[in-house]
Amino acid sequence: MSWSDWLSAEAASREAAGLTRWLVSRPAADDVVDLAGNDYLGLARDPRVREAAAAAALTWGGGAGASRLVTGTLDLHVELEHALASWTGHEACLVLSTGYAANLAVVTGLVGRDCHVVSDAHVHASLVDAARLSRARLTIVPHNDVAAVRAALATSAPGERTLVLAESIYSVLGDEGPLVELAEACGEAGALLVVDEAHGLGVHDAGVVSRLGLAGLPHVLVTATLSKACGSQGGAVLGPATVVEHLVNRARAFIFDTALAPAAAGAALCALGIMRSDPSLGRLVRTRVLDLAAALGVEPPDGAVLSVPMPSPQVAVAARDLALAAGVRVGCFRPPSVPDGISRLRVTVSAGVPPEEWERAVKVLVDVVEEHR
Amino acid sequence: MSWSDWLSAEAASREAAGLTRWLVSRPAADDVVDLAGNDYLGLARDPRVREAAAAAALTWGGGAGASRLVTGTLDLHVELEHALASWTGHEACLVLSTGYAANLAVVTGLVGRDCHVVSDAHVHASLVDAARLSRARLTIVPHNDVAAVRAALATSAPGERTLVLAESIYSVLGDEGPLVELAEACGEAGALLVVDEAHGLGVHDAGVVSRLGLAGLPHVLVTATLSKACGSQGGAVLGPATVVEHLVNRARAFIFDTALAPAAAGAALCALGIMRSDPSLGRLVRTRVLDLAAALGVEPPDGAVLSVPMPSPQVAVAARDLALAAGVRVGCFRPPSVPDGISRLRVTVSAGVPPEEWERAVKVLVDVVEEHR
Repeated sequence: MSWSDWLSAEAASREAAGLTRWLVSRPAADDVVDLAGNDYLGLARDPRVREAAAAAALTWGGGAGASRLVTGTLDLHVELEHALASWTGHEACLVLSTGYAANLAVVTGLVGRDCHVVSDAHVHASLVDAARLSRARLTIVPHNDVAAVRAALATSAPGERTLVLAESIYSVLGDEGPLVELAEACGEAGALLVVDEAHGLGVHDAGVVSRLGLAGLPHVLVTATLSKACGSQGGAVLGPATVVEHLVNRARAFIFDTALAPAAAGAALCALGIMRSDPSLGRLVRTRVLDLAAALGVEPPDGAVLSVPMPSPQVAVAARDLALAAGVRVGCFRPPSVPDGISRLRVTVSAGVPPEEWERAVKVLVDVVEEHR
Repeated sequence: MSWSDWLSAEAASREAAGLTRWLVSRPAADDVVDLAGNDYLGLARDPRVREAAAAAALTWGGGAGASRLVTGTLDLHVELEHALASWTGHEACLVLSTGYAANLAVVTGLVGRDCHVVSDAHVHASLVDAARLSRARLTIVPHNDVAAVRAALATSAPGERTLVLAESIYSVLGDEGPLVELAEACGEAGALLVVDEAHGLGVHDAGVVSRLGLAGLPHVLVTATLSKACGSQGGAVLGPATVVEHLVNRARAFIFDTALAPAAAGAALCALGIMRSDPSLGRLVRTRVLDLAAALGVEPPDGAVLSVPMPSPQVAVAARDLALAAGVRVGCFRPPSVPDGISRLRVTVSAGVPPEEWERAVKVLVDVVEEHR
């Protein structure tokens, strides 16, 4: 098939399945209540964070100017790395330009063809891509099934280096991983555990791994994003200094990428300071999650994202559009972004929404969900 | 081998080979002349670009708050995409959060197992990783060898979708790809040509692809970074609207990544405006490259990065350190960042260095290179 025929056929088949996506841009400010993004604590729009980003750009420039190993490591990056490691309780930290890059770096930097990756079935696309790119032998285990992880670990040959991939809070279902049990299983098997805290950090203060006392263990690594609760852009790997040193030397997704822009590093550093000194933001998110779940009649998630199952992708989109017409922006989960093929309305709780807007938004969502479920 | 034994063994073997890398941070301002980064036009530190980054952060926030398809597409991203497409002469543009992500997106979004990728041996690590991740059949051809590309294209089965990967200016050797011939070969074979303009855009005005009249052809795609000449962070894919629409729907490195931070988008947009209205910056870089190559007795590259071969990685590092002691920061290319195993001093020419500092830096480099070659 020619390229143009193939592109047309792909577009037609997306359209027929109700799965065509398109980009809709938004202005800097509108009167819509945003319950679609990942700005869980409202820090991306916090004046202190905006001003820190601006100050960093004015001081350091529009970009870092080079990859981290060449001349792109700013004192600002080092400060951010220290702040992240110290808050979360890990020995060392490496900041990258995105969370996707952090996941790619940690997996492909540590394992190759002669290794074994055991992955929960619901991990984020970036970990799936990382495992694939590493060319390690891959065992995908059922979601949150510790027995299956133990069984998979038992198939590692003697000396076959093994990574286990999990998340603290899973994106689509919003449930928590059995991290204590996974860390125990990894410790016994001599495997490393990689926990993606994209949806845990900030919502659960210094993250679920920290709360559970697993941070700082020699076989527990964490990846994080700076673009959700931290209100900025970027990613990080947290863990033992020996691992971070190894990644600096070997992780291609780190080595061959320009360093995180100064404004993003400055914004993240400011956001970390706010989160660390003010646990009320995380508390407010967790309270609102419970209230909204009760109002919508769904199980409360462990994170800040509520999923409301919808009968089809088309209905999910219609419900989303109706909510938007009523002044509330929510998202959809549709294939291929769902682990089980079920389309969902995706509602993000944020501490940044003022109380009266929050109450109005809850009413709108209750009506919309009742009409479409 | 246990994880800790393996990490120790890897560290020891790097050390023994003289290949240990470590991060050295720099302050916001020092009295060193920076000829190590990729800020080719000096725009990362240009006051107009800094102010544009700061203004975007103040207006839009510290981060975009979500992935592009959810609610992270800002009017600012669309404006940047229009500016890039219009300047370079392509129909459409998609902005991503890094150049690495742009290369991952274009390759893995377009080809899979049943496809063929023909790659120049010297393409950037991100294209190598992208080809690997795509799982397409991969043919690596000798550097800049059009006959070898034609021979590889002839092995594509009828209907086997094929991508050819090349760069306009190659990073390490600094030479230009035979783009007219490659575009012709791809056109005849029904293949798509992907040209990475990371080192071409800005140094050669709107890029080499534009200069050669290849922009806008239905079978020519370009990837670019916003972190080199554009002085910011981010990446872009440029090409036909049908391809961009396809990537929006299918490219995991685009879909599953938070949108580029506002400050970076604002900085890049400002830098594009400066480059477009003032071709003297690109001209100054090209003149300085010729002068420096003559002074160092090396072949002038087509881009802004000069490579000076060194007898060993250790000597390259020693020469770099001596230059730094004399107030000039340059970089090293060492394995695994070189296609041929030869370590090099890496000197980046920038239009941002004032004339008197530039002259002093040239003298320092002539002395250092003579002592170590």
